[in-house]
Amino acid sequence: MSKISIIGTGNMARTIGARAMAGGNTVEIMGRDQSKAAGLAKALGDGATTGEWGTTPAGDLVIVALLYNGVVPAVAHYGDALAGKVIVDISNPFNSTFDGLAHGEETSIAQEVAKVAPAGARVVKAFNTVFRHVLEKGRPDVFIAGDDAEAKASVEAFIESLGLRPLDVGGLKMAHWLEGAGVVTVGLANHGVGNVDFALSITELPV
Amino acid sequence: MSKISIIGTGNMARTIGARAMAGGNTVEIMGRDQSKAAGLAKALGDGATTGEWGTTPAGDLVIVALLYNGVVPAVAHYGDALAGKVIVDISNPFNSTFDGLAHGEETSIAQEVAKVAPAGARVVKAFNTVFRHVLEKGRPDVFIAGDDAEAKASVEAFIESLGLRPLDVGGLKMAHWLEGAGVVTVGLANHGVGNVDFALSITELPV
Repeated sequence: MSKISIIGTGNMARTIGARAMAGGNTVEIMGRDQSKAAGLAKALGDGATTGEWGTTPAGDLVIVALLYNGVVPAVAHYGDALAGKVIVDISNPFNSTFDGLAHGEETSIAQEVAKVAPAGARVVKAFNTVFRHVLEKGRPDVFIAGDDAEAKASVEAFIESLGLRPLDVGGLKMAHWLEGAGVVTVGLANHGVGNVDFALSITELPV
Repeated sequence: MSKISIIGTGNMARTIGARAMAGGNTVEIMGRDQSKAAGLAKALGDGATTGEWGTTPAGDLVIVALLYNGVVPAVAHYGDALAGKVIVDISNPFNSTFDGLAHGEETSIAQEVAKVAPAGARVVKAFNTVFRHVLEKGRPDVFIAGDDAEAKASVEAFIESLGLRPLDVGGLKMAHWLEGAGVVTVGLANHGVGNVDFALSITELPV
C-alpha cells in the first residue's frame, strides 16, 4: 500500500486515482481549483482526500497529472514542499504534428522536472505510453525510468498494486526515449493499428 | 512471395535470409567479400543466390544488414544500382553507452539513407526493435516506418510471409523514434527484463 498524492483534477488524475484506490492505496487530490479537487475526491469515494495546491503533499509518491507544459511550472511552484518526495511524471510532450516531441534531444519533461525539484526529491517517468482508457480498462505494461533505485522500487510497488507490470528501462535520461515511445504509440494508433485499444508492451519468448 | 536481396553476410543477414527462405521468398546475398556471400548463400540452401557487391540487386526489396555506420556508405556506393528498389534499413545506431543514438535529433539512419538513395528508391525502416535471436526463434511484432505507402505495403507483405505482424508507425521521420525504441528495448534488457528473450510489441484490449 502506498500513499499517493495526485497533482491535477483531469481525466488522467481520475483514472489513476480510481485504480490507485482499487489497489488499496491512499489517494490525495491537489488541484489549483479546490472545488474541482474536492469533486474528484468525492467521486473517488471514501478515503480520498484533498490537499491545498502548493502545500506539502500527504503522499510519498506525487503523481503530476497535468498537461505537459504545466508539469515543470507546477513542480517549481511546489518547490520545497516536494522535498523527499518521489515525483512521478506521466506527461507526453508531443509536437503539433504528433510525430515528435515539443522539446529537443537530450532532455525530457522528467529531466526538466528534476532540474526544478527540491533537494531530496527523486523523479521517475512512468505511465506515458499508456492511453488513459487502456489504463482504465486493461492491464498494460508500464515502462518507467529514473536515476534513484529506491524511488523506482516505490513506483514499481505502486504499479504492481494496480495489477500492472512495471518495466524499468534505465536512468532518467531514458525518459526522453520513453517520451519517444509515446510518439510511437500514437503513430501506431494513427497508422498500423488504427485504434487506441492497445498498449505498447513486451512479449516474452516463446511467443 | 517477394524477391529479396540482402546486403551483408553477418548474423542478421543469415537470420533474415533463413526466415525469408522459409517464408517462400527468393533470397540473394551480396557481400563485399564474395566468398563470404557464397558461403552464406550455400548455408541458406537451394535457391539462395549471390550478387556482386555494388551491382543491381535481383531483389525488389533490398535489406541492408550491415553495422549502422556502414549502411549509408553502402547505399551511396550502390548508387543508381538501387533505382526503383525498396531499401530496408534495419540498423540500430546506438551511442557508446546504449542510452541514446549516435546521431542527433531530427534524423535517423533511414532518413540519411534516403538522402543518398537514387531517384525512385523508397526507404523503409523495419526490424530494428527485434533482437536477432528473437527473430530466429520467435514471432515478434515488426515496427516499420516510411513515406511511401506502396513501399511499406511490399515490406508488410514480406514481414507477413515470415509469419510476423507488421505494425506501421507512420512516415520516415518516425524512424528516429523507432531507433529510440531500439534504445528502449536494450534498456529493458539491461534493467527491468534482465534478458534478451523478449520483443517490444503491442497488446490489444482486452488484455
